Amino acid sequence: MNITTNQEHKAVQVNPEKGSAMEFNHIKNVVAVMSGKGGVGKSFVTGLLASALARDGYQVGILDADITGPSIPMLFGLHGPVEPGTVGIQPLQSRSGIKVISMNLLLASEDQPVIWRGPLISKAIKQLWGDVEWGTLDYLLVDLPPGTSDATLTIMQSLPVKGIVMVTTPQGLAALIVRKAVHMAQSIGIHIAGVVENMAYFVCPDCGKRHIIFGDSHAKEVAETANAPLLTQLPMDPQIATLCDTGKIEEINIAGIPEFLQSFLKAIQALPEKKND
Amino acid sequence: MNITTNQEHKAVQVNPEKGSAMEFNHIKNVVAVMSGKGGVGKSFVTGLLASALARDGYQVGILDADITGPSIPMLFGLHGPVEPGTVGIQPLQSRSGIKVISMNLLLASEDQPVIWRGPLISKAIKQLWGDVEWGTLDYLLVDLPPGTSDATLTIMQSLPVKGIVMVTTPQGLAALIVRKAVHMAQSIGIHIAGVVENMAYFVCPDCGKRHIIFGDSHAKEVAETANAPLLTQLPMDPQIATLCDTGKIEEINIAGIPEFLQSFLKAIQALPEKKND
Repeated sequence: MNITTNQEHKAVQVNPEKGSAMEFNHIKNVVAVMSGKGGVGKSFVTGLLASALARDGYQVGILDADITGPSIPMLFGLHGPVEPGTVGIQPLQSRSGIKVISMNLLLASEDQPVIWRGPLISKAIKQLWGDVEWGTLDYLLVDLPPGTSDATLTIMQSLPVKGIVMVTTPQGLAALIVRKAVHMAQSIGIHIAGVVENMAYFVCPDCGKRHIIFGDSHAKEVAETANAPLLTQLPMDPQIATLCDTGKIEEINIAGIPEFLQSFLKAIQALPEKKND
Repeated sequence: MNITTNQEHKAVQVNPEKGSAMEFNHIKNVVAVMSGKGGVGKSFVTGLLASALARDGYQVGILDADITGPSIPMLFGLHGPVEPGTVGIQPLQSRSGIKVISMNLLLASEDQPVIWRGPLISKAIKQLWGDVEWGTLDYLLVDLPPGTSDATLTIMQSLPVKGIVMVTTPQGLAALIVRKAVHMAQSIGIHIAGVVENMAYFVCPDCGKRHIIFGDSHAKEVAETANAPLLTQLPMDPQIATLCDTGKIEEINIAGIPEFLQSFLKAIQALPEKKND
């Protein structure tokens, strides 16, 4: 097995005689974090949720499926290259033990673009899923790229996704495009576990006034369209930006995270079982 | 010629005996608005720039190349369907006369997802370029989707793009992914006209304090990597969100727009000529 990029590459060679990573892995719940729209905070919500799960004692992995715009390694301060293990690529581990794989951990340089058309993107995603030594995980969170094209389709059709966490922001524009993503998931028959509204408000640190910078919330409408609960509404906060930019997402400590985790766990448990094949 | 979507569709039939739209069109400057990262405000910058150009008397069009997450029609309050003209599809016109074409103007319902793999996305983009009665335009702004995959590649390889306006935000994460986009443009040999930093700051309307919500600016680094000028830094403002969500982007009147327009015009004029074939 060989994952390469378009220009320079870190080829990770694995010996297929020792068996495949898929035989070795036992992943209990695959949950995709989706939006349709870019920049609403899918990667942030993925990282925040993974950190909360790990803090609560769950075994967690993150598959960064945004091949051309990967954000996850930076949030956790992780840098490649990854190394081969016995039956597959070894994911990197964050400070709190979250296993992470991302295209950016396979590139020779982190700001190298991946200029690929759809078929190569789909192949890469299948390898990041099936050729990685995930081991035993309670939750594998899949951070999807924007859009409803190749990467998203491949995840929905090839991975045993139990449910989707749909991320939105207060803008009407985001709500419109997130509704497209909801309709895509519904047409493919994948359940939406819940909706998260990010960048919901900003509290001025000087005067304490709460500002709705991106307009009034459309989260309830999105949740109704998705027929799923609104799991949480997250604020904009300069501390969040700073911790995310310095690889310290696991240190974020904003109000409401324990309640978000509980509503997430409850929503996932309420979904019908999906055979993990 | 026939543009269809995956489910219900508005087929627009044009009589090829009358000639092609490409013979009829005369587009002086094609400028792509790009980022690599989603949600940084590519569509907002496209709409703001188009409005400023139109206000200054230029003939302007917008090609919304984000097929799966189109934002442009909502910003201008435009709704489909589009109608066939003599030699191609007639674009819709905004209040100030900006000609607009977008996949969302061809869908039976605006929140219908376009679940297409890359080849169909590329074909659709070529049709939105070549089968539309643009007429004579001083500037056609192309609003690119996030990522460096099919849609972006197709635009860069198939359209006579004179230059790129690269949009970023203060987050280090955005800067990383925007640098990927810069390297993509450079590897394909398309010039970057300039860099725009969006969501640079927020001024509290209650206490007047200026807040850097998304962290310190990385715009100068991005501009240096792009070897292009920093054209402007735009604020976050609840009024912007409200006007964008209600289709009134042409009414946005924030400080610095005339200077932004002048630096854009200067940057485009400084680029080498590209044959418009």
